[in-house]
Amino acid sequence: MERIPILKLGDFLLVTIQVDMHDQLAITLQDDLTTQIAKHASRGVLIDISSLEIVDSFIGRMLANIAAMSKVLDAQTVLTGMQPAVAITLVELGMSLSGIKTALNVERGMEILRQFSDQSYELQDANGFQE
Amino acid sequence: MERIPILKLGDFLLVTIQVDMHDQLAITLQDDLTTQIAKHASRGVLIDISSLEIVDSFIGRMLANIAAMSKVLDAQTVLTGMQPAVAITLVELGMSLSGIKTALNVERGMEILRQFSDQSYELQDANGFQE
Repeated sequence: MERIPILKLGDFLLVTIQVDMHDQLAITLQDDLTTQIAKHASRGVLIDISSLEIVDSFIGRMLANIAAMSKVLDAQTVLTGMQPAVAITLVELGMSLSGIKTALNVERGMEILRQFSDQSYELQDANGFQE
Repeated sequence: MERIPILKLGDFLLVTIQVDMHDQLAITLQDDLTTQIAKHASRGVLIDISSLEIVDSFIGRMLANIAAMSKVLDAQTVLTGMQPAVAITLVELGMSLSGIKTALNVERGMEILRQFSDQSYELQDANGFQE
């Protein structure tokens, strides 16, 4: 069965989307990803779409869904490597991808996730101090 | 044009192979990878094949070629996520992948690359000291 691999890198998970997404593949990816987040207690998800030249409303919705699911599981989603043409298409489709942070490449995406992770730890510490 | 994305992670490059390889795609990947190694002075290449369920002699040769090219450019190649069935097939095909290190997952692969990178730096330091 075809599935998109999810790579664990420390506290984060990395997914690179290279193939055309269809319904079943998208559902499998959402299932796999949420399972992996829960299993490893991951703090963030990096989705690299640098090899996607076309993004339609289906992929846009899938990305928004993944981000929403991750957020509920306390993981931040960062989308990396978006090509300029894809950004134009997304806005023209009326999808602003609210709730998803974006970064030009995986390294910057990692930095964003680390900052987010540190901040939420500080927040937890601060809350613990108030009790 | 279809191409496999190459992600830069610090001193290393990460490639996940998800699609069926054909001649042109393999050549493009070799070109892209050698260019990126030279551009970023990368010390290692991680190739994740966890989503490959079948490996034939063509892919085996391609992986061996990539490892050989990387070595000439002073970068170590580590192959990660190989499925048990793939390991069986490779040995049955008579391909022992000599010159390629393997690791069960990307995190262990990274550790191997870090060790290799540290060792070669020490070697350089030692050589510098003797001069």
